[in-house]
Amino acid sequence: MKALVYDSSNSVSLKNKPLPTISKPTDVIVKVTKTTICGTDLHIRKGDVATCQPGTTLGHEGVGIIHSAGASVTRFREGDRVLISCISSCATCEYCRRGMYSHCTSGGWILGNTIDGTQAEYVRIPHAESSLHPIPDGADDSSLVMLSDIFPTGLECGVLNGKVQPGGTVAIVGSGPIGLAAIITAQMYSPSQIIAIDMDPKRLDVARQFGATETIDSSKADAVAKVKELTEGKGADSVIEAVGIPATFDLCQSLLAPGGVLANVGVHGTKVDLHLQNLWDKNISITTRLVDTTTTPMLLKLVQSGKLQPSQLITHHFKLGDMEKAYDTFGEASKHGALKVVIDVD
Amino acid sequence: MKALVYDSSNSVSLKNKPLPTISKPTDVIVKVTKTTICGTDLHIRKGDVATCQPGTTLGHEGVGIIHSAGASVTRFREGDRVLISCISSCATCEYCRRGMYSHCTSGGWILGNTIDGTQAEYVRIPHAESSLHPIPDGADDSSLVMLSDIFPTGLECGVLNGKVQPGGTVAIVGSGPIGLAAIITAQMYSPSQIIAIDMDPKRLDVARQFGATETIDSSKADAVAKVKELTEGKGADSVIEAVGIPATFDLCQSLLAPGGVLANVGVHGTKVDLHLQNLWDKNISITTRLVDTTTTPMLLKLVQSGKLQPSQLITHHFKLGDMEKAYDTFGEASKHGALKVVIDVD
Amino acid sequence: MKALVYDSSNSVSLKNKPLPTISKPTDVIVKVTKTTICGTDLHIRKGDVATCQPGTTLGHEGVGIIHSAGASVTRFREGDRVLISCISSCATCEYCRRGMYSHCTSGGWILGNTIDGTQAEYVRIPHAESSLHPIPDGADDSSLVMLSDIFPTGLECGVLNGKVQPGGTVAIVGSGPIGLAAIITAQMYSPSQIIAIDMDPKRLDVARQFGATETIDSSKADAVAKVKELTEGKGADSVIEAVGIPATFDLCQSLLAPGGVLANVGVHGTKVDLHLQNLWDKNISITTRLVDTTTTPMLLKLVQSGKLQPSQLITHHFKLGDMEKAYDTFGEASKHGALKVVIDVD
Amino acid sequence: MKALVYDSSNSVSLKNKPLPTISKPTDVIVKVTKTTICGTDLHIRKGDVATCQPGTTLGHEGVGIIHSAGASVTRFREGDRVLISCISSCATCEYCRRGMYSHCTSGGWILGNTIDGTQAEYVRIPHAESSLHPIPDGADDSSLVMLSDIFPTGLECGVLNGKVQPGGTVAIVGSGPIGLAAIITAQMYSPSQIIAIDMDPKRLDVARQFGATETIDSSKADAVAKVKELTEGKGADSVIEAVGIPATFDLCQSLLAPGGVLANVGVHGTKVDLHLQNLWDKNISITTRLVDTTTTPMLLKLVQSGKLQPSQLITHHFKLGDMEKAYDTFGEASKHGALKVVIDVD
Repeated sequence: MKALVYDSSNSVSLKNKPLPTISKPTDVIVKVTKTTICGTDLHIRKGDVATCQPGTTLGHEGVGIIHSAGASVTRFREGDRVLISCISSCATCEYCRRGMYSHCTSGGWILGNTIDGTQAEYVRIPHAESSLHPIPDGADDSSLVMLSDIFPTGLECGVLNGKVQPGGTVAIVGSGPIGLAAIITAQMYSPSQIIAIDMDPKRLDVARQFGATETIDSSKADAVAKVKELTEGKGADSVIEAVGIPATFDLCQSLLAPGGVLANVGVHGTKVDLHLQNLWDKNISITTRLVDTTTTPMLLKLVQSGKLQPSQLITHHFKLGDMEKAYDTFGEASKHGALKVVIDVD
Repeated sequence: MKALVYDSSNSVSLKNKPLPTISKPTDVIVKVTKTTICGTDLHIRKGDVATCQPGTTLGHEGVGIIHSAGASVTRFREGDRVLISCISSCATCEYCRRGMYSHCTSGGWILGNTIDGTQAEYVRIPHAESSLHPIPDGADDSSLVMLSDIFPTGLECGVLNGKVQPGGTVAIVGSGPIGLAAIITAQMYSPSQIIAIDMDPKRLDVARQFGATETIDSSKADAVAKVKELTEGKGADSVIEAVGIPATFDLCQSLLAPGGVLANVGVHGTKVDLHLQNLWDKNISITTRLVDTTTTPMLLKLVQSGKLQPSQLITHHFKLGDMEKAYDTFGEASKHGALKVVIDVD
Repeated sequence: MKALVYDSSNSVSLKNKPLPTISKPTDVIVKVTKTTICGTDLHIRKGDVATCQPGTTLGHEGVGIIHSAGASVTRFREGDRVLISCISSCATCEYCRRGMYSHCTSGGWILGNTIDGTQAEYVRIPHAESSLHPIPDGADDSSLVMLSDIFPTGLECGVLNGKVQPGGTVAIVGSGPIGLAAIITAQMYSPSQIIAIDMDPKRLDVARQFGATETIDSSKADAVAKVKELTEGKGADSVIEAVGIPATFDLCQSLLAPGGVLANVGVHGTKVDLHLQNLWDKNISITTRLVDTTTTPMLLKLVQSGKLQPSQLITHHFKLGDMEKAYDTFGEASKHGALKVVIDVD
Repeated sequence: MKALVYDSSNSVSLKNKPLPTISKPTDVIVKVTKTTICGTDLHIRKGDVATCQPGTTLGHEGVGIIHSAGASVTRFREGDRVLISCISSCATCEYCRRGMYSHCTSGGWILGNTIDGTQAEYVRIPHAESSLHPIPDGADDSSLVMLSDIFPTGLECGVLNGKVQPGGTVAIVGSGPIGLAAIITAQMYSPSQIIAIDMDPKRLDVARQFGATETIDSSKADAVAKVKELTEGKGADSVIEAVGIPATFDLCQSLLAPGGVLANVGVHGTKVDLHLQNLWDKNISITTRLVDTTTTPMLLKLVQSGKLQPSQLITHHFKLGDMEKAYDTFGEASKHGALKVVIDVD
């Protein structure tokens, strides 16, 4: 079969690989129909993710069809359409019991990281019963690929951790795909203001189109002053960091209202400054999270009921054979006006 | 009347001052019977608290008797015994409505800071109806002085923010009075382990006596390794910072279990490092808080029912006339084996 | 001034009364500009509310302008536009501190019940600072009258008590004004289904227009079977009782999914059957609540931001002089297609 | 092997049965070392539980040793000591994912009900990985049998559902084993008062000994008046029904403070009256629950740390051969002063 493989720093390529096989009775093999590329895949390509060894098939997102199932799998059978969670969960360890699937002691983020992933014709899914979701009849596969990772991430790490609430004010720093997923899912909780902050005016246009009530180009305006002005001098109740560098984390601290929450979504490679001299008495919280995908069933229901349209994030479609080109396009997203790219495998 | 006044950097002294008078219909004048000294008072004495002007009477803790009451005060009358909250609350502003009395737009921590405080024979209490608590018959005044600030602080900023839970593990860095208040109040929620960490063996002895199940002298042992060993390699579910310097905040980050909470109680004068490169995917929270004293009525009930004995923190008693000596004793707490000192005003 | 007065069972009439005066320093007198009639007013008219004495001016909803303010009122001044809460709250008693303003020991639902109410040219508002809300510039008064009672009631007693959640299923029994307010405010939390149940097809049409995703005419269809069918056999996660009679409360019990919540909003005059033999092991909750109006500030923000349009409930307008006719119209709501009627006092 | 079998109404007897065998790869066979009898077993003996067919081995509580394990079981191996949960949980169905193991679509309360149970030398445990708990070294088996059902039931259905909180007041109606388990576990949350109500003075003595701060013999005193007197006229914040008949459920409704919770633990065979005419505006909740045993790991930690001593509930020990006598003793608990009886199987 064809698979997109991490070769070494700065190189990925489409290779031929043998079909995966069931190694535990709880595994299934999924024939992938759609997959996508995540910002994390670009980090791996750069060589920044030490856990991912050369030779690994990349990808942790996708939908497909059950090809074969291990002996103890009763929830799925051959031919069932399934949504693949980016997080594998055994459902029984202490962390899974608490809903922290991301820290599953025999799962977590392993697909396309420590084991072969979804950017291939077939993929082995461990802990299948608790790591796959049945796809309802009539659902749109491309939309559902957005529920493997980016929508639960925006929602769980951003919106839920950020305690977005009816009538509240939300500031989202970074309007890339993950920031946009936060903007879209924030609306599930009816805040009165969603303020998008970025330095790219085109992204801010998209942010407004997806539901931001205000946008701030922080390369031109004083974002702190502007947010204070929009919030009666208080700052934002929920601040979502969707970039992952010290400068944006710093900005986020300055945007917080007393009693507010700074929900970090960005992947950080270095330590940052925390201004406790200003914040120790401000009754604030700072949260971090690797997505647990506990909200995927709920998101599926909202997509089915038409209340959520994840496909609005999709800007490009590629065939699996053009996977390398897909990486280049997504890698230079700004140049190509790319948000999420969908790979049609079949 | 006599009052302990902040003169200038490094100097406080007992002075004669006129009796305070009612300036708003919501004020009362309290005749103070007991007060105490807080770590924050020492910060003011050093000149570290810019909001406190020379000439201000210090003190934000105490119990006393209503001397006179403003025209709109109906909840208290002359002669009533009352507990003074360190936080003044109007009860009606947006922050007060949310239980964030610390950020009351016309109150908060003002006593002994921006207005004259409780280390005097009389004190004016603004927003009296919502900033004083009636004292039940038979209650011990010295015990109750501990409910003005230190017990609510240990409980709210440490234990509640730290989400201490039945069966959970708690690590408390710093075994000064505030750390001890956290150790005592943590037991209200039945954690399975309370690990006290300090560099002073005498304080650790006290910590153990007040309920710590384990103690670690971090000047001798590797606290991180020890906490991991005590928690099956995971770290602590709740980590309480009760010191207020970069080194201890750093230690706290290393003690956190995945999914844990770092509750900062310490007063920080400088920024600290936040190791987001390690923590971004650990599903942790960091919280800060200036005490709101929302828990004072509950603490009063627990003291009344005998389930809490705040007097165990009291090591010294002084007369108001010996106030300067009280400051010296509390200022060199370690030398004198001092925890909390009570000032008998009457 | 003119005031609508409860005379005796089955009789209300417009009378002349002296202007109210300030009796405590915390009172204000409000010149009423808009008011409305509540289902509870009809109960009083029938003689069903023992606490309301003949001679009392009715009404607990309205907006107006501050006419005069007591000595200790600083938050409002003459000429300010204000929204009147149907619940008076002292903000400092134990219940108010817990957000249970409905049980305020010197307030609660007193307007138009135990003291003169808002269906008059002027009304005295006790505990003014915590029982009135400033009206933002540009707000529509008629819309805001809906925030005095019906919107907070639908939201607090129905939606919040019912734990309506994203992706969840909600069944609302009764599509009168209060059921409709629940249907509208439920959408703030993005449930996947809102099922309206009533026996009047016209009301069900309105329900659908206001956001119900399904409607069931329980005079024709088996509501239990239909709800089961719509929810994969489980029943509804949130069931809201918005009628107040034994039959509808019975129906609600049968609609509950395991783990669901039955939020009672209806005013009940008799005991009901609780089928514990079926429910004892179903992990369900049943809640009751007199509205606390804690959500009014949040609702105000959502109205201001355009996310909520309470005016959609208003079907009729009357002048104060036509108040008796307004009662007749609202009293025969079905005949007149009436939802909420607004009384223009000025 | 020997097994205690339900024969028919009013008859159970010790029989010889073949050893159970593994039927699914997720099963294990446990060699039982200790078991106990539950009130529910007495209900079955009476013929009141329709789901339990004659011929079924009774019992849903116990500890034992893994005898053999199915092919996909990796968490346990032969010889491991395990605690058996009364609830079998697949861990992956929708209800299990929400922590409602009691409603597991392929589990729930099946042991000693719809499949053979634990009152035997060996028992088959379905969904073993998520229905058994490893027993820490040095733990006391008799104590742990109390964690199979009665302690989680008292805690989850009574204390947690009842929102017992620090400083709160708790009234517990019924001082049988389950009421006592609620009294003991309530103390994990530091209420200021625990009021035990029963009509048997001996049980009330035990209640006081286990932590009740007040006791009321409702056959002699007016329980409602007494609880009001003890709670400043308000009633109890948490009321726990631990009997299961209309009269006690009625009493519980009268004991509720505004804003309180009535947590039903009792098994009810008939409908009851709900006095909504009094309660509709009291902001109360009523909850029901079949135990989910989600708290078992936490209880294990508290037993291990010495903070909880479940063995205090054990009054009698029997050998498996004396099982019928054990039923008679437990069936006439009051006569024998029996609380919980432990069956030593090995």
